[in-house]
Amino acid sequence: MDIRTLCADDLELICRHREAMFRDAGKGDDVLRPMTAHFREWLRPRLANGSYFGFMMSDGGTVVAGIGLMLIDWPPHPAHPLQDQRGYVLNVFVEPDYRHRGLARALMRLADEEFGRRGIGYAVLHATDKGRPLYLGMGWNGTTEMAKTPEASPEGHGG
Amino acid sequence: MDIRTLCADDLELICRHREAMFRDAGKGDDVLRPMTAHFREWLRPRLANGSYFGFMMSDGGTVVAGIGLMLIDWPPHPAHPLQDQRGYVLNVFVEPDYRHRGLARALMRLADEEFGRRGIGYAVLHATDKGRPLYLGMGWNGTTEMAKTPEASPEGHGG
Repeated sequence: MDIRTLCADDLELICRHREAMFRDAGKGDDVLRPMTAHFREWLRPRLANGSYFGFMMSDGGTVVAGIGLMLIDWPPHPAHPLQDQRGYVLNVFVEPDYRHRGLARALMRLADEEFGRRGIGYAVLHATDKGRPLYLGMGWNGTTEMAKTPEASPEGHGG
Repeated sequence: MDIRTLCADDLELICRHREAMFRDAGKGDDVLRPMTAHFREWLRPRLANGSYFGFMMSDGGTVVAGIGLMLIDWPPHPAHPLQDQRGYVLNVFVEPDYRHRGLARALMRLADEEFGRRGIGYAVLHATDKGRPLYLGMGWNGTTEMAKTPEASPEGHGG
């Protein structure tokens, strides 16, 4: 398995991973199509300037898994009293034929190391039901976050 | 009860509310003192430029409760497929003598209205154990957020 950092050319691949991840979690095309169209434009400048970073894993030249990372601006907090940033992990995706081989675990270890290199002492993510057991086994724990859709939308709201 | 929006002069008051809120939740001075010193410098420019906003409630000229609001940059997501921001509620605090009178509920209604005015369709917060029942009763629900402190710190990590 080859591992490399993300580059600007990964734009469409990351969009595909994000959409496939949410489709696996039960979201429909009605919400995923507009999301991806907006996510692509959100991602383009951030991937280019390195504020969205991460890794891709390849097998024989074909990318089979990926992970995205960001540093998010956050008020100094008891969990990181001296820092005004926290790490964020997103778009963790492994192609179906490559699951249950430890690729997601390897990507999460790379995330830990990368945050460590950047001096980030606290990181968060939002887990799908499928991802949760892996994260629990790697030292991640549920937080007290709550969410609300102030104006009710017909499609409801996810986590 | 008088209600007003925040102003730059509220810097110390907001710092006091944040510290008191976390102290109520069991955090100690060892972590709160450095947090507040860093939070103050984080807050100063954001309060001045209006990117940290919110409300204070007063009784007879004395502030007795407050709430802070922010819009946080976020990738378009199934819960907000067309938007690259989500609302964030923080530093909800009511002075002990004024609790159980509906002030926090009134502040949370103001937050809903303010996010609505700004066109924000999805908001999050981190609840203390004390706040959780109120939020649950107002349409907020737990998310799948998980957190990790990559390099273990002696004081542990909160939600």
